[in-house]
Amino acid sequence: MQYDIIVVGCGISGATIAERCAMLLNKKVLILEKRDHIGGNCYDYYDTNGVLVSRYGAHLFHTNFEEVWEYINRFDSWNPYVHKVVASVDGKLVPVPVNITTVNLLLGTHIQNEAEMKEWLSTQVVPIANPKNSEESGLSRVGPKLYEALFKQYTQKQWDKSPTELAAAVLDRIPVRTNFDDRYFSDKYQAQPANGYTHFFERLLDHPNIHVSLNTDYFEYVKIHGSNTQVFFTGPIDQYFASVIGKKLEYRSIRFQFEQYNYPYFQSNSVVNYPNDHEYTRIVEYKHITRQTGNHTTISREFPTWEGEPYYPVLSENNLDLYAQFQKLAAQEEQKGVYFVGRLANYKYYNMDQAFKNALDTFARIFPNS
Amino acid sequence: MQYDIIVVGCGISGATIAERCAMLLNKKVLILEKRDHIGGNCYDYYDTNGVLVSRYGAHLFHTNFEEVWEYINRFDSWNPYVHKVVASVDGKLVPVPVNITTVNLLLGTHIQNEAEMKEWLSTQVVPIANPKNSEESGLSRVGPKLYEALFKQYTQKQWDKSPTELAAAVLDRIPVRTNFDDRYFSDKYQAQPANGYTHFFERLLDHPNIHVSLNTDYFEYVKIHGSNTQVFFTGPIDQYFASVIGKKLEYRSIRFQFEQYNYPYFQSNSVVNYPNDHEYTRIVEYKHITRQTGNHTTISREFPTWEGEPYYPVLSENNLDLYAQFQKLAAQEEQKGVYFVGRLANYKYYNMDQAFKNALDTFARIFPNS
Repeated sequence: MQYDIIVVGCGISGATIAERCAMLLNKKVLILEKRDHIGGNCYDYYDTNGVLVSRYGAHLFHTNFEEVWEYINRFDSWNPYVHKVVASVDGKLVPVPVNITTVNLLLGTHIQNEAEMKEWLSTQVVPIANPKNSEESGLSRVGPKLYEALFKQYTQKQWDKSPTELAAAVLDRIPVRTNFDDRYFSDKYQAQPANGYTHFFERLLDHPNIHVSLNTDYFEYVKIHGSNTQVFFTGPIDQYFASVIGKKLEYRSIRFQFEQYNYPYFQSNSVVNYPNDHEYTRIVEYKHITRQTGNHTTISREFPTWEGEPYYPVLSENNLDLYAQFQKLAAQEEQKGVYFVGRLANYKYYNMDQAFKNALDTFARIFPNS
Repeated sequence: MQYDIIVVGCGISGATIAERCAMLLNKKVLILEKRDHIGGNCYDYYDTNGVLVSRYGAHLFHTNFEEVWEYINRFDSWNPYVHKVVASVDGKLVPVPVNITTVNLLLGTHIQNEAEMKEWLSTQVVPIANPKNSEESGLSRVGPKLYEALFKQYTQKQWDKSPTELAAAVLDRIPVRTNFDDRYFSDKYQAQPANGYTHFFERLLDHPNIHVSLNTDYFEYVKIHGSNTQVFFTGPIDQYFASVIGKKLEYRSIRFQFEQYNYPYFQSNSVVNYPNDHEYTRIVEYKHITRQTGNHTTISREFPTWEGEPYYPVLSENNLDLYAQFQKLAAQEEQKGVYFVGRLANYKYYNMDQAFKNALDTFARIFPNS
């Protein structure tokens, strides 16, 4: 079979590009996937305990993009799911992000409404006009009590750096709610695929013009077959240009420690954060998210690490400078028909909906008349 | 020992009256309690599974009465606790009382804010100016979809009557929230006793002038000892006047089916309502409320019944007429120094804080110069 397009990577970005090219342009698409499964980091599977789990951590879909919501609903049905997270602090489980209940539970206040919450917050926050680091950002947004209880050590664990060494941006976006809304996300659309993510990807890729080759390294493939088609590359951009610039972009990763139990529930919530205790940052119990029933459960403890799969770009000056160099090379490469799409190719932390959006936008940009 | 005051019943009402009389008036108080424990229906204990459970169902303290909050904090410490309830409907767990998330989860809507929720509600509710029964009340407050999913059959199970046969008042007070607030109660103070209710009562009653006689029936006691002291009667008023009016006030009761498990959690929430499935109305898992840890859990399924302990007054015309007769007798009895205090003596469904308030108010009324 002769292919018109090669897509490197079969996660959200690759699968979406492939689907669009096959469906709208009737192109023959070959997806090369290094791993032994489709779906990228969304990949989920039934483990030996019979529980549907996500190999690369919980994935919670949420979006305000009508276009993305409409798109994902073409392929499979999605169940409404409203994600909530609690943090275990001083033996209490308090909702995250911070809202009135968080403060009342944690600090024994009796705040009753928005006006009182705003008043209380105003007595807490440290007035810092231009926070210079994450600590200053945290203090200026929630004040020292909440910062110490919920953010300081969590940030340290997550990034292996003191918040004083991290850019203000890291904590700049902590949502603080002055009402009782304890949803983790505020997006209009919040849902989980009714049959799991892997099944969703199977449906997304179910087109006669799309062929997926698993366990296939693109760079090895090119050595053998050459490359005379358009290429959509969704892998790490530093890997693509390794022969030009021998430096690596830094990523923070997570080691997932799965544990199986022969009883219905391990914990009361889908996600329990441990900001101050333990080496792991949180414990995820998938059944709360999938609403799977039965007498078995599987959890995963998440240990942040510098080893492993690339998850969180480390937005230091060094890395951003390096990425800028890669970006210049990428712009030149586009002239040869190689396009860089997605999280790893753009060195950005995309939420799932942003990854879909980025892929759809890239497709529209490259094929404006489709 | 010579007693100045006899208190009948050692629940909230009796214990509070006793404490006030002992502490403020230095009276010697004898509490006669028919059961083998203090605390009335608040009574909790560590079961054979090592789990702290409530023999007569979950008790969640909440109040807006500053006086009551101040009073209960004198005796033991209370941990902030914000109660949340979910209902199991069509395999989903949706928050109760109805709020935006309930509607979005149940009906697949994507309501984002108060304005949209109010707009949506206005398209649902059935305009009934003066609801004549519970069904009309429900329809006029939440519309047919939510009424059918959450209230219709739950009400039927709870009261063993069709909502069309029940007074509008039964569903008149369903809270409907147009925001994301999913707390079960909105009160300023929401807390649980740090060491359990029974321990709280032990502290409340810990006064040299208070003596508690368990397993003691007041009516038997009077036969033997007579009664020449003031009496605060907190038992069922129809029982007190049984020899005058031989009719009984109706109560709805609950049979609690306790089940012990050798694993951490049975369900994801403290209370899961089953409006449409099963004979029980709900399953309570106490560990979620007490925050007890450990590898054992105990739940109770609640089966509404006409047999058993008197819990919910049945506010039919017959019963209210009958209670009015008892009330007249009670007023006469007061002249002889017998006072009727609390839920059972007043044939009312008091929340815990209302019971404290009623006892404190009664004490202040009877002893105005204390």
